Amino acid sequence: MIRSTTKRLRGLALIRDDDIPLYRQIYEHIRTAIRTGQLRPGDRLPSTRGLAERFGTARGTIDAAYAILTGEGYLIGRGPAGTVVSAELDSRTIAGAASKPRLRSPGPRPAAEAPRPFQMGLPALDAFPRKVWSRLVARHARGFAAADMAYPDPAGYAPLREAIAGYLAASRGVRCTAGQILITSGYQDALNLVASALLQRGDKVWLEDPNYPPTGEALKAADATLVPIPVDAEGLRVFDGVARARRATLAVVTPSHQSPLGVALSLPRRLALLSWASVSGAWIIEDDYDSEFRYIGRPLPALKSLDRDERVLYVGTFSKVLYPSLRLGYLVAPESQVARFARFNRLRHLGHATLEQRVVADFMTAGYFARHLKRMRALYASRRLALSESLLAVFGDWIAVDLKPGGMHLIARFGDGVSDVNLAQLAQAGGLSVEALSRRAATHRCGQGLLLGFTNIAEQDALDICQRLHHLIRKPLENRA
Amino acid sequence: MIRSTTKRLRGLALIRDDDIPLYRQIYEHIRTAIRTGQLRPGDRLPSTRGLAERFGTARGTIDAAYAILTGEGYLIGRGPAGTVVSAELDSRTIAGAASKPRLRSPGPRPAAEAPRPFQMGLPALDAFPRKVWSRLVARHARGFAAADMAYPDPAGYAPLREAIAGYLAASRGVRCTAGQILITSGYQDALNLVASALLQRGDKVWLEDPNYPPTGEALKAADATLVPIPVDAEGLRVFDGVARARRATLAVVTPSHQSPLGVALSLPRRLALLSWASVSGAWIIEDDYDSEFRYIGRPLPALKSLDRDERVLYVGTFSKVLYPSLRLGYLVAPESQVARFARFNRLRHLGHATLEQRVVADFMTAGYFARHLKRMRALYASRRLALSESLLAVFGDWIAVDLKPGGMHLIARFGDGVSDVNLAQLAQAGGLSVEALSRRAATHRCGQGLLLGFTNIAEQDALDICQRLHHLIRKPLENRA
Repeated sequence: MIRSTTKRLRGLALIRDDDIPLYRQIYEHIRTAIRTGQLRPGDRLPSTRGLAERFGTARGTIDAAYAILTGEGYLIGRGPAGTVVSAELDSRTIAGAASKPRLRSPGPRPAAEAPRPFQMGLPALDAFPRKVWSRLVARHARGFAAADMAYPDPAGYAPLREAIAGYLAASRGVRCTAGQILITSGYQDALNLVASALLQRGDKVWLEDPNYPPTGEALKAADATLVPIPVDAEGLRVFDGVARARRATLAVVTPSHQSPLGVALSLPRRLALLSWASVSGAWIIEDDYDSEFRYIGRPLPALKSLDRDERVLYVGTFSKVLYPSLRLGYLVAPESQVARFARFNRLRHLGHATLEQRVVADFMTAGYFARHLKRMRALYASRRLALSESLLAVFGDWIAVDLKPGGMHLIARFGDGVSDVNLAQLAQAGGLSVEALSRRAATHRCGQGLLLGFTNIAEQDALDICQRLHHLIRKPLENRA
Repeated sequence: MIRSTTKRLRGLALIRDDDIPLYRQIYEHIRTAIRTGQLRPGDRLPSTRGLAERFGTARGTIDAAYAILTGEGYLIGRGPAGTVVSAELDSRTIAGAASKPRLRSPGPRPAAEAPRPFQMGLPALDAFPRKVWSRLVARHARGFAAADMAYPDPAGYAPLREAIAGYLAASRGVRCTAGQILITSGYQDALNLVASALLQRGDKVWLEDPNYPPTGEALKAADATLVPIPVDAEGLRVFDGVARARRATLAVVTPSHQSPLGVALSLPRRLALLSWASVSGAWIIEDDYDSEFRYIGRPLPALKSLDRDERVLYVGTFSKVLYPSLRLGYLVAPESQVARFARFNRLRHLGHATLEQRVVADFMTAGYFARHLKRMRALYASRRLALSESLLAVFGDWIAVDLKPGGMHLIARFGDGVSDVNLAQLAQAGGLSVEALSRRAATHRCGQGLLLGFTNIAEQDALDICQRLHHLIRKPLENRA
């Protein structure tokens, strides 16, 4: 039994000089093996000792991977009988891999992995207007003409680009034509497009510190030289940037709601940033990922709205305002760069599926989008408060909750003497999707804390979930000096 | 009037050192302006003289752009009154941009641009099983659970990867696990993924000569050094490749049906290519874009089926076997490279919309896919014959039709004394999507001819369309020496 399981894990090659920790590589490999059916419910996993020997890693590495998989319900610990693949997987955790869909009687499809509590950057999936949405999808699928099936415009479906231009003018103070808008599969895709069109090997790029790590990873892969610039209470310290790398080609910023600290870039800093870019001919990516969600006052206008010299590349995503598996976002290119961006876009891929683009265009034009945003703002405002109050109720003096006027997460700070990385690992092993703030820092210290998404925690569940967190991370908090 | 139109064309900046001809840039810009509503039905275009002066180009450049747009129905020539945007656009040519969809009474949506006769690489859009497809889409949209909306696996939807692995084993002789399959948005996306994961700046890449030009463009943008290798009746001349660039990192080939010549790579050449890759540690991209369509004998097994040392990166697309605006394809990575490819894939984008992936998985698993392929093979076989016979009937001695056992296009050769580029331009100006074979060559001469897609020409229309082509290109054929 063990032998055959080990054989089924044979594809696993650990990458030593990689950015991904070994436990994560093992975790992902086993999870994939389960999801694709290489490992089946009831299969016994190799012992942690055996697997550690095979890969020449510490046993703790394997333990960590098994713990997370157990926390997520993929594996079940059977004590001396070892660790087995959970028998309840097919109906609960696995992404529909086990049951083949049939046309005649599909029944309710097995749910994919549900969002784990505290997961960041995920909209409230339980509150999405699924009925209206699926009606629109069905309608567009039925109305699908032969001509809709040919190669689409790689820049995106024209009516969607128009709808976005209208939305940006009304909601974000951004004036642009539909021709300036390129549809992307999300932020990462837009970032890579900008890198391919504007960056040369070794070009310097300002990056906020702390930041959203995939930004730096993608830019490094594009051979850029990263220059982390500290963020303080007014956002990016623009003058530090000028002092460190005046001749940078690009700055990537999150002005509305800094990721992850949640501060807004102040008006003087906005003007300083734009002025630097105009004088030095640099470009600015404005990653406006969750600006719609602001609970105190109105959403701030985008940095792009002040951009007289057309130095800002505005990047938006539908992942937060609609849902992530839609994989749609957009880039607003300056008029001078439209042809260049279109050309580099075409070299990368020939665009995105049109069905969803049609549905989103319809959803926006028919007024559902504005209504949905309004509802989500109200919902998130109450979820944000419920979580923050529950955290204070459960952790008392141990905790300081860092609430910002907007966004989809808060920061829980536990003071000195305990590592946020340690706390996050314990919470993750218990099935909670908790991230350590310190892991977001490049060189600048931004303190320690836990990043906790509140959008998927219903008000009535907040206290329970905080108690679960408390149970998981209590020990190191009690034991500190 | 003219002034305001000129102003609405202000975004147009011509790129002088670009691969795209100037007339094509102007054409695309005006078409985009019409599709996005910047130019409206009835708007008068600037005179060709005025526009030529403004851009400092020859008047003929503007003429060519206007001619194509007129041929496609976007513009109408009014003689001395100038050229105006067609008033019939919204119901016929434009991609739905003019009419905003409403939820209550959508009616039949305006058709997007219909495929132009002879367009290459486009499946028979009139014969797609739209009813079954839209029923599946509607069903999946209704069954959409909250958990289906979170961030998807960037490598793709697990059941689709399984279905593809099953299909490849049964139809292409390729054995792989679902874990080796990465879902892409099509060939271009897969090519860029391979380039990002495996190519260093300046690495040499063998490219077939003639070839599919976007391959070279994407590889050049990835800083590869292209080494064109001639193709003869047995496909890529492998020994020429070894002589010219033994230490190349990658070879990109179309072994089943060379693009565009249609020849198959012979077995001795296949073995030589694999042996070179094994010995020198090089990689091979097998672009298996239309191998399913073979009309004489059975489809050839893929090169990948002979790949004992795992040097082949197999690339497939659903653009030809389903439809292009689906934007789905896949890459089969060697087991040793799965982790590396997954990592580089994640750096580029976070995957593709899941709805279509679910539908395709269902379509394959329920048996519709195999049935569709079988039907299309029969349909294309008769359209291929009908077009070839009609060409012979209309052009008589002027033409030699180069029919290969597979594929989606044929090559019409008109002998010496007339330029295929000239013929193609005339046909394009008349609204036919005809490409010149010689434009596909890099350094190796592959002769002249017109590339004519037959998949979208119904048998009963073939003669009419050939007569239309005859009418458009007759003069230079009559006038040659």
